[in-house]
Amino acid sequence: MSTIYHVPKVHFGKNSLSELSSILDNFKNNLIIIDKNLINHASLNILKNNNFSLISVDTSTEPSVDYVDELSLQVRNIINLECVVGIGGGSSLDIAKALANLYTNPGSAALYQGWDLLNNPSLYTVGIPTLPGTGAESSKTCVLLNKVKNLKLGMNSQYSVFKEVICDSNLLKSIPKNLFFYTVMDAFFHCMELLNGFFRSPFSDAYAQQALKLIDDIFSSDDPMSDVNLEKAMLASFLGGSAIANSYVGIIHPLSAGLSTVFGTPHSVANCIVMQAMEEYYPKEYNLFMSYKEKNNYTLPTGITKNLSNEEYLKLYQSSICHQKPLINALGEDFENILTLDKVVNLFKMM
Amino acid sequence: MSTIYHVPKVHFGKNSLSELSSILDNFKNNLIIIDKNLINHASLNILKNNNFSLISVDTSTEPSVDYVDELSLQVRNIINLECVVGIGGGSSLDIAKALANLYTNPGSAALYQGWDLLNNPSLYTVGIPTLPGTGAESSKTCVLLNKVKNLKLGMNSQYSVFKEVICDSNLLKSIPKNLFFYTVMDAFFHCMELLNGFFRSPFSDAYAQQALKLIDDIFSSDDPMSDVNLEKAMLASFLGGSAIANSYVGIIHPLSAGLSTVFGTPHSVANCIVMQAMEEYYPKEYNLFMSYKEKNNYTLPTGITKNLSNEEYLKLYQSSICHQKPLINALGEDFENILTLDKVVNLFKMM
Repeated sequence: MSTIYHVPKVHFGKNSLSELSSILDNFKNNLIIIDKNLINHASLNILKNNNFSLISVDTSTEPSVDYVDELSLQVRNIINLECVVGIGGGSSLDIAKALANLYTNPGSAALYQGWDLLNNPSLYTVGIPTLPGTGAESSKTCVLLNKVKNLKLGMNSQYSVFKEVICDSNLLKSIPKNLFFYTVMDAFFHCMELLNGFFRSPFSDAYAQQALKLIDDIFSSDDPMSDVNLEKAMLASFLGGSAIANSYVGIIHPLSAGLSTVFGTPHSVANCIVMQAMEEYYPKEYNLFMSYKEKNNYTLPTGITKNLSNEEYLKLYQSSICHQKPLINALGEDFENILTLDKVVNLFKMM
Repeated sequence: MSTIYHVPKVHFGKNSLSELSSILDNFKNNLIIIDKNLINHASLNILKNNNFSLISVDTSTEPSVDYVDELSLQVRNIINLECVVGIGGGSSLDIAKALANLYTNPGSAALYQGWDLLNNPSLYTVGIPTLPGTGAESSKTCVLLNKVKNLKLGMNSQYSVFKEVICDSNLLKSIPKNLFFYTVMDAFFHCMELLNGFFRSPFSDAYAQQALKLIDDIFSSDDPMSDVNLEKAMLASFLGGSAIANSYVGIIHPLSAGLSTVFGTPHSVANCIVMQAMEEYYPKEYNLFMSYKEKNNYTLPTGITKNLSNEEYLKLYQSSICHQKPLINALGEDFENILTLDKVVNLFKMM
């Protein structure tokens, strides 16, 4: 038995961003959280006549408890705030959800990292993804780095599901070629990892299978960023987020988290780097991944895990192996006897 | 561009019915609408300590405006009603949704038949399907027969989406063999008709393709009503309902509506009867349907459209051809020149 949470209302397709203005009109006070790189974004130009506060956020590093707590001081001072809109990649969307949760739940974000710890419903939340793949638009979490506890953990809660999402594929047109590959592959990894795991649910399987089919359409075509494919990418990301919200990832995400923790490698590219060493565990998907990459001449950073000190390899190992839930999902309770220090170091050396 | 509505919260899997008691505890006053054939159903035994009113409904004929208006008089007298639960097949679920809408919107149900005519949000609604295939659990409508206007039309509205659904496959175990086939085929027809139509949306396509895959798994297996397949049927129905909520059916449903109007044939079996004459329009799906039927020795009523009077054939034609939207979806604006009286009569004679 499982409980699946869905975004109740999704505006989908080119120009669906035009819905935002009338959504904001439903509320007395709105707050828009936007990636600082998007501050001159077309999406804001259409809102001239709307009433909203604006906070641009720094997503050059992954969002942390400290950063969200600091923003929250400012947000809690907005009187009668009713609606929070997030515009951007996964980090901006997660920050928006966290701030909406913290407006109605007192104290630090750290108090709510875990499962079902939020006591009060959040504000009305609207998500507008500008990068397809993260799944933040349809997930029931908002992931934050907790530097004190040295972990990355979400506020997993029904209140962390957006109430409304706008999936406008026009917003994806300017994504650089390689970044488009990395970010869509994030959805690919969510789906293939869960489908290869022990913990399964029929809903997650169905969404994941459909997302993988869409992703295969995209990267088997001659123009992965055509209008039709951008819509497919939006949909694959949404379905992948819904799928993973009710399941677990596998080996790739933990090793990728190791890279992000030790080298600050952005999540989506870190996943792709790790996949290059995953032929042993996911042979079918490894071949698919490599065929997508080669057909379209996507490039990946190489050699970042070569010739490290023993201490650095140990750090990589430790910050990977601590992700128990996904590793149990992939390998069983015995995962530490399979992914030994030597084994993990060898995997990193292959990347 | 399209707007997709989802059920926000779905409890899925065997024994998920156990969630109902704690859902009811969230509200001061609850109303349970249940098919009168299910009045001794196990689902009610678990609710001994809960506070609710109960109305058993007659679903031997399709729900009508008159019937719902009559029930509504009674329901509007329940003071401080907050939550309406529907338990049963598509008719019971649709009646529950209609009554929840009418509690907060004055006047006859007929006022709200159409698109986006409800002015006020409905009560909290919970759907518990006991027949898989109708899709009423995930649709954004509740279909009612309007005898005055001689049409069948839903309250199409975001407020007609259940807030919470319980998909417990244990509830499907006692469905008779043939009925199981007919009702799951309802989802099959929703999906294949929309995928063969002109009006398409990526979301609907994705849900429909996945539902068809699940249905193919079910009827290609040696035991279509195994535990695993009952879960797949629940999921296929849910996905099919979500798919059709944002699209249109094709030729089968209009002709099936003709049979229901003229002979009172229940919806799901009427669809199957019509499919037997659809090889010309849907050859691939016709073959699939026949293979499912033959592999599992399902039987259908035969000959009900043979040897009718000209007047009866004319009635069948008229009550089919009036369903313009799906017929335009299937055949284009010119559909009346394709489905002439002679053609439609010949199709009915093939059934």
